[in-house]
Formats: sequence, C-alpha cells, structure tokens
Amino acid sequence: MTHHTSLRPLRSHMNARGVAACIVPTADPHLSEYLPARWKTRAWLSGFSGSAGTLVVGGDFAGLWTDSRYFEQAERELAGSDIALMKQRVAHAPEHLAWLSARLHAGAKVSIAPDMLSLAGARQLRATFDPAGIELLLEDLPGAIWSERPALPTAPIRAHDPAFACATRAARLAGTCTALHDAGATHHLISSLDDIAWITLLRGSDVEYNPVFLAHLLVAADRATLFVPSGKIDPALRAALAADGIMLADYADITAACAALPADARLLVDPARVAVATLAALPASVQRIEASNPSTAAKARKSTCELDHWREVMARDGAALARAFRQIDTRVRGGEQLSEMDVDDIVCAERAREADFIAPSFATIAGYAANGALPHYRATPQHHAPLQARGLLLVDSGGQYLGGTTDITRVWALGETTSEEREDFTRVLAGMIALSRARFPAGASGPQLDALARAPLWAAAADYGHGTGHGVGYFLNVHEGPQGIRPPVPGGALVALEPGMVTSIEPGLYRPGRHGVRHENLAATRTCAQSEFGTFLEFETLTLCPFDTRPLLPALLDAAARAWLDAYHARVRTLLAPRLSGGDRDWLEARCAPLAAA
Amino acid sequence: MTHHTSLRPLRSHMNARGVAACIVPTADPHLSEYLPARWKTRAWLSGFSGSAGTLVVGGDFAGLWTDSRYFEQAERELAGSDIALMKQRVAHAPEHLAWLSARLHAGAKVSIAPDMLSLAGARQLRATFDPAGIELLLEDLPGAIWSERPALPTAPIRAHDPAFACATRAARLAGTCTALHDAGATHHLISSLDDIAWITLLRGSDVEYNPVFLAHLLVAADRATLFVPSGKIDPALRAALAADGIMLADYADITAACAALPADARLLVDPARVAVATLAALPASVQRIEASNPSTAAKARKSTCELDHWREVMARDGAALARAFRQIDTRVRGGEQLSEMDVDDIVCAERAREADFIAPSFATIAGYAANGALPHYRATPQHHAPLQARGLLLVDSGGQYLGGTTDITRVWALGETTSEEREDFTRVLAGMIALSRARFPAGASGPQLDALARAPLWAAAADYGHGTGHGVGYFLNVHEGPQGIRPPVPGGALVALEPGMVTSIEPGLYRPGRHGVRHENLAATRTCAQSEFGTFLEFETLTLCPFDTRPLLPALLDAAARAWLDAYHARVRTLLAPRLSGGDRDWLEARCAPLAAA
Repeated sequence: MTHHTSLRPLRSHMNARGVAACIVPTADPHLSEYLPARWKTRAWLSGFSGSAGTLVVGGDFAGLWTDSRYFEQAERELAGSDIALMKQRVAHAPEHLAWLSARLHAGAKVSIAPDMLSLAGARQLRATFDPAGIELLLEDLPGAIWSERPALPTAPIRAHDPAFACATRAARLAGTCTALHDAGATHHLISSLDDIAWITLLRGSDVEYNPVFLAHLLVAADRATLFVPSGKIDPALRAALAADGIMLADYADITAACAALPADARLLVDPARVAVATLAALPASVQRIEASNPSTAAKARKSTCELDHWREVMARDGAALARAFRQIDTRVRGGEQLSEMDVDDIVCAERAREADFIAPSFATIAGYAANGALPHYRATPQHHAPLQARGLLLVDSGGQYLGGTTDITRVWALGETTSEEREDFTRVLAGMIALSRARFPAGASGPQLDALARAPLWAAAADYGHGTGHGVGYFLNVHEGPQGIRPPVPGGALVALEPGMVTSIEPGLYRPGRHGVRHENLAATRTCAQSEFGTFLEFETLTLCPFDTRPLLPALLDAAARAWLDAYHARVRTLLAPRLSGGDRDWLEARCAPLAAA
Repeated sequence: MTHHTSLRPLRSHMNARGVAACIVPTADPHLSEYLPARWKTRAWLSGFSGSAGTLVVGGDFAGLWTDSRYFEQAERELAGSDIALMKQRVAHAPEHLAWLSARLHAGAKVSIAPDMLSLAGARQLRATFDPAGIELLLEDLPGAIWSERPALPTAPIRAHDPAFACATRAARLAGTCTALHDAGATHHLISSLDDIAWITLLRGSDVEYNPVFLAHLLVAADRATLFVPSGKIDPALRAALAADGIMLADYADITAACAALPADARLLVDPARVAVATLAALPASVQRIEASNPSTAAKARKSTCELDHWREVMARDGAALARAFRQIDTRVRGGEQLSEMDVDDIVCAERAREADFIAPSFATIAGYAANGALPHYRATPQHHAPLQARGLLLVDSGGQYLGGTTDITRVWALGETTSEEREDFTRVLAGMIALSRARFPAGASGPQLDALARAPLWAAAADYGHGTGHGVGYFLNVHEGPQGIRPPVPGGALVALEPGMVTSIEPGLYRPGRHGVRHENLAATRTCAQSEFGTFLEFETLTLCPFDTRPLLPALLDAAARAWLDAYHARVRTLLAPRLSGGDRDWLEARCAPLAAA
C-alpha cells in the first residue's frame, strides 16, 4: 500500500500565501538525475516513486504529470489519492505549464521551490506565465510544512584511488581556471555533482548509483572553495585538498558566498545546472557569463589512461556477465524456476566478485517477455515475472568500478522464440552494428548519426521512442553529457563526437504485451583516418560480452554486419576466455562461435 | 575583359552621406535566387558575375566576399580592379559583418539598400552592428548613382496551361485565406515569386531559368491584389484574374498599399522573404505575424495530378537525355572532338525536341575530368575543356516543362577510367541508392536522413561539401523550399519530408584537379507502410535515365544496392525504350543491362 501525504496542510499554507497552484518538480539544488531523500518532495507528497514526474497542487485539483514509462506505476501508486495522473506525451517536457497557464486567471500566483529550479527552468516558466499575467513565487511551500524532512546525507567523501585517477587535482583545477579565464570570467560556480567530483578527484555515495556527493564548487583565479556538509571529509583529505588549493566551507554557505562576490566579478555559470536559490543573493552588479561548465566537455574526452583502465574493467565486467548469463541460461533451460528478481541478484553477485567493483551503476532492468517491452522496467519484490524456458529476457545492467563505469544490455533466448522475436532481435542488432561500424567526419554530432542505427528498423516499419546513445562517465554518472546520439530536435544541441568520448549505442524495439529487444554496447570515439577531406572518426566498442546468436536470423544481416559480429565475438572470446573456466568457459566459446558455424 | 565600374562616384556619394562603408548584397525585393538585371548592382559595380557574393565598399578598401565555388572566377573577374577577393569559408554566410564591425569605430555609418535586405537580414545586421555602436543606414547609395540602371523586365505574364495546372486559382486563393485566418492575421503580404506564381497559377520569364515574374501579392480575407509592372498582363487574363478575386495594381505601389493598411490590421509576413523597403511605410499599429508563407508548405506537397504529369515529363526528359548521352558517348568514343560546350548544346537541343518543354531549369554543368570537381562549374565560350576518350564527364542539367521541372546529374565514362575514378563513382552511387531506398517514419526531416547518403563515402574517409538534396517546384523553381536534405546545423530548421514532396537526392565526391562524381535523381515522398509504430514513408524515384555501369565496381555495392540498381534500370528500360528507336534504343538497352550481365 502506497503512502499518500495529505495535501490539506499544503493547501492551507498555499491559501495563507495567496498561492493558486504549487509546482513540485523532480529536482534538487544540483539538477541531478538521482535525488537525495531530502529533495524527494514530489514522492513524499504524491506517493509516486518514479524517477520523473511533476506534481501540481491547486486549490481544487492535483495532478501528477509523468510520461509513458511510468503510466502503470503511477496509476498503481496514485490509487486512493485525489491526485490525477496526467499523461505526458514527451518525456521531460514541461507540459503542465501550458495546462496551468490556460486554466489560471491573470494575477494568480504559482509557487515553486527555488532550490529545485535551474536558472534556465525559471526562464522557461516566466516565458510561459508572463504573457498570461501569472505571477511566479519562488518559495518552497511543501518544504515549510514537511516536519520530518530527511536530513542531508552523511556518507563520507573519499579521494578517487590515485592508481585509477589518471590526473592530479592541481592539473584539473588549473584547467578549470584557464577555462574560466578564457570565458572572460573572474569566478566560476559549479553545482553539477559530476563536474565537481571530476575536478576534485573526489567520490562519494550521497545518491543511488552515481558515486557523487552533495557540494558546490566556487572557483576563482587563484583559489577554489568546496561547499560540503561538515564532517564528511576527514582531516587528512582536508589537508590534501588545501595543499591543492581547495578550501572547505559548509554546504549551506554557498548562497552567502555568492552574495559576497566582488561587485565587479564576472561569474561563469551553466544556466541548466545551477539553481535559482544558489544565486538568490548574487549582487546585481555581478555579470553572469552563461555557458556550459567547461569541465563538462573536458570530462567527456577520456584520456588514454582512463580508457586503458576502462578496457580492463570491461574484461572483468564481461567475465562477470558471462558467468551470470551462463547460470541464468542453463538453469532456466534446465527447468529450474527463476524470476526477474533472481536475474538482478545473480548479475549483481557476479559483478561483486570482480576486483575494484564498487556498486551497480543503475537499477538493473531485467524484463522477461512482455516486461522487456517496458524500456525502464524494474522488477520489484511485489511485481516481477517468473522466467519460462521460451521467449526473450532483456537484461540492462551496469557497474561502477574504480577504473570505469559499465552499461550493457543483452537479450537472451531462454528457449523457443517466435519469428517476430527473431526478426526484431536481428533488426535491432543490424542497427547497433551499422552505427558501431560507422566512420564519420570529425565534427559530426550524435543527432547527425542517429538514423544509421534506426534505418534497419525503419525498413521494417519499426522504430523506438528513446535515444540511441548517451555519454558515460569514468567511475562517475552512467548518464553523462554533453554528447548524445538521438534524433535532431529544433533548437537542440549538436555536440560533436570527439576522440575519447565514451557513448552507449543502444537501439531497441518494443512490442507492448509481447516482448522487447535492446542491444547496448559502450564505445569510445577514436580517429581512424586522415584524408584530403579531413579527419575521420570511428567507434571502438569497449563492451565485451557475447550476443545470443541462437535467435539470430543471419539472412537479415548484410555481409559486412555478419563480418563485424564474427570479429566482435572472436575478440570477446580471446579477451574473456582466459578469465573463465569450466562450464563458464565452454558456454562462452559456444556463444562466441562464428555465425557460419552457429 | 571584365568591365569594372569605377568606385569613385559611389565613394563621393558615400562621403556626402557620411557613410563609412556600403554593403552591396546579391538580392532583390523578392529575395530570389536569380536576379533581374535591375538588381545586379553588385555585378555592375564589381564586375564579378557569379551568383553569390557581397561587395563591401569603404573609403579606402573594397572587398568582395564569395565562397570557394567562385574563387577562380572572382579572381579572374576582379583582376585589374581595386576590389580585393575575400575568401568566405561558408557559402551564404555573412562573414563580412564580423569583419566590418571589427574594423569600424563606434558611430560609423554603414549603408545597404532596403530593397535588397529581408526583415530577417536587417535583424541580423543590427544584432552585429548595435553592440559595436555602428549605425545602419537603409539607403540605396549605388542605386542613386546608377545612371543607366536597367529597367524592370517586361516579359508577359501568362496563365499556367489549365491542362497542367492541376488546380483552380480560386481554390489556391481560398486556401491562402484560410491559412492567414488560421494564423490570426487579417492580411498577408507575399513577395516570394514562386509562392505568388503558385497561388495565382501564373507564370512569367522575368529571370533566368525560373518561370516566375516580378510581383507582390497582398491577400486580405475577401480579396487579393497583385502588384505587377503594368502592361505585362493582357486584358483577357486581367478579366480572368478579376473573376477569381485578384485585382491588379502597379508593382511600385506595394509600399503605399502597406502604408494604407487599416490601423488594426494583423499582417502575416515571412521575415526571410519580404524586403525592408516593402514594409518601410507600414503603420506602427499594424501587428506583424511572422511565419513562413503558408503557400510554401502547401506548394511543396505535390498533388496526385501534378505527380502524374511529372512522371510523363520524366519519361520525356529521360528519352531526350538518352539521345543526348548516346550521341556524346558514341561520338567521343568514336574519336570525334567535342567540348563541354557541345555537351550543353546537345543536351539542350534534345530536350527542346520534347513536347511541352519550355526552357532549361538552370545553367547546364558539363564538367569533364578536373572540371567535374567544381560542383558549380559552368563551361563558357572563353573557358571550357575538350572531351577526351577517357575519364569522367559530369553532366548536371534540367528542364522546365509545363508538367514539371527536372534536375538530373549523370556521370559518363568516356573511355578508360582510373581505379580512383571507379571507386569514387561507385561509392557515391552507393550513397545515392542507400538514401533512395530508405524508409523512415512520418515526421523525419532531411537533416535526420542526410547521413544515410554520406555513410558509404565516410567509410572511405570521403565526403562532400554541399547538401544532399533540395526541394523542386512543379514547373517552378528548381530550388524550392521548405524541405531539404543536408546535415543538421545549430538552430537550423528540421522540416519533415511529407508525402508528395519532390526532393533531389544528389551526393557527390570531388577530387580537385582530377575528377568529380555526382549522381542525382528527383524523388517524391510517399507513404509505404502503417504499423503499430506509425506511418512510414519512402522515396519514389521519379527521374528516368540509366547510370553508366561501365565504371561501376559492383563489389563495392551491397546486395540490396545491386538489386535496387537492377530494378531501376529495368524500369528505365521499360519506360524509355518505347520512346526511342534505332541506335538510341540499342544504346539504352545496353546501358540498362542488369549488373550480373554488365
């Protein structure tokens, strides 16, 4: 039974403040993907625990906007409350804004917490509300009535093991200072947690899956101040940070520190990654220079050292998965009763046996049959399916290792498959291979290449509703910018895929109620040719794990794709076999057999 | 010897008006691609006759900005003048603006003719000049000193033959009225000539190649006024237009008509297609609603009737080209001495033999060997190459017919070819076929698909610097918006390819000093499938003319591409053979032989 907080106290507080509607987004002061409990206000008020959604509470209505990934879950979790599920068409789109402005009269007040709203988000709100005469009140009304609000997380902050860090803190800081100087700034405020972890070479565990910690970083030409809750950094690390030019201050003092900036300061900020509250007291005379955090681009271009560690991590991750998948494959085919929850347990347990493994990099998606058609499915103790010795099992999982982050999706035939399953399985693989073997000119962006992965699906009048790839951090966030592979959208960024960037390649195909297919590898961009037409790049596939060739229809792959797959399997076998033994090794050899012999 | 107008009179007029620099763009009041002589101010002043370029005249400098297509020609034509050639990196980019604003001091005045500047262009100028404190003077200084300026063209305007028009004028006008009403407007000003020709079902010959006429069209809810130079429309057509609700006014009266709009009018205008001068006297109270002309989108979606005529035109055009190419092929291989000029003559002469042919749709590009590497090459009596019985001849040409406009590029091996020529020839064809046989979801834009044509070239570290495709008009402009197939650019439009749109597919590959390859067909977008994933579209190739399979390396094409090519050639043979006889027919049969037998 889901817990619903009564909306009555909030409504009476809204009444007292003359507020017609209160927007409760899914956000924190760092605009992170995963929130600490303290900012799970929307989940606390509504009972809806999904990772994306916006609650709007009015005097006589309350609605929860979320997208198709969460319709089922939201319906279940909102049942019994008076909150209506508002089905959002596009993920992450602020569709509640147009809804609200069409329904509120001029002069009405709408509140939102300023520590859960980026500068860019505030601008978008004003652009919608101003023409309608709606007033925006930047005030945390739910926070004011949340008596048992969780405290800030207290997990310790540690240095990234120097054996894996591949950089010195002083060099990272110097690079940041150069970048802020180049941007014409005197100061640079960073609130995005992965940027801060990357610059400081620190890691934490304040949120699920991402090894980051709550902080702000204020960099000036000659010094930097890290704002963290006190007590999370031990004296030795504090001294080491000081030696590198990083002083500590309390997490709560960032607003005051911004208020105390010199009147003629020029502050570099990323409007999408800094909250309104953080800059609430910034002197009006301080000039804001708005741009992406320079560390975001620098962090995305992985160094040779980082990629070397990552390749070793991939071999470990691949060996762990070979053991896990062999176990699932043989036990289910052997008639044993396993569930999607068991898949998650087995995969996590095998990864945990590998050296330098820290934690999963996201919640495992183990979707059997129809559950595989839900791209963001998560089996829970309450809701999960038993596996049967037929059909397809989709497993999307990943690990955080000291030497890199992994994210991989494989689809396993647990026995007989339908011809539709085999065709879908093969066409998605054709798309994954087409993009994986593409070469492209330096300067090409992910949106420019996205169609290469989709064309084999389009040929069969099929498509998928998610992006084709996302950047991945180095022992950092599994979703990392700035690059991405997705269809171009009006006004959207076109970030070039640069050498060293690590990006997922993961086309899919989902048949609601029947099955889902997604094949995902991580790939590093590297230079492959220089010609009179310039520099050309290609992908180096990093992920090492066989694809199930049993449900494959080789006739649907062209000769080049078949050759790519055989070469990939030969490489996987060479690199993983020495790390496996006995039945695991036999299973790997069978799975890596070339297609002709398959 | 090129004629250079002395810059002295202009400079003394600039001096009198206190102007530091005068910008002379390549533009007219309709922002057309081809200009009437009256607006060829830049060519008159500089002597540079290319189709793109901007002249900037200052007190002690004069520069002509143009892009790499025209470097050679500009160098030749500017020789002996004191105008410097400024090599522009990106075609059509206003790179002179940054140059000027870096060199002029605050308070300096820059002039430009307001009838050669769009509303959007003026905004761009102000965005660059305002921060630098540079003042913009909207005044035609060259026009004031141009004593023998050519008059407006006087060619008659005629109705599009009703047997080919496929629509009634009343219906087109009613559609335009509905669109302006839907946009919340009371009036709609149209200055783009192809939009006006399309709505009014009229055609003219005021400029080269495009069958349009100089005019503005002002549409109100219950009437329309066509502003054309008097004497170009005969009484019978005038009466027919009046019966359809279109009154005539003098071309020069458009500014006054805009000035006389009701104070509460809401005027729909396309800021990229209306000149500043045209709206110079618009009452300040008139609200401008800025959007693409609704006719631009409507015109792009060709009707079944239009496409039916077009298919017949393609058969005629293909038969004419088969005769022309057979003649060139056999005469050159037979040892006869022909030149690029002869190619142009032969192609035009064979087209002229076909019924309902009106004129070429653009200047033929016949580039032999190294000249084929110049994408916009034009052979002239002064500069052209003789053909030899080896290497590649690129021929890009097109015709205006009453029932459609054609644009086709073929590359012919005139004898022995090098392995580089054969590889390039084949890879470009692989790209053309890959895009031609693509299927894609409704809503996909050209920029989303562009990479499909480039991937086979990228694989060989090659690329081309132009777009992959442009829209084509129905007995109208050979370059027509709004759709296009080109790499996505930041802030660029993403126009969906809709059923009925006709677009060129023309990848290329250019080896400066050696050879060039481009293969071009026109293709109509059509629905091909409905599935649980939505509507899917594909291209119907309209162009009918064999590709030269003699230089082809079939091993570089995958099986699907080879099958596409054989099927295309079978269709070309079936549709063209009955229109040819004797040696022409034999030649066609040989050129259309399937690859296995080739």
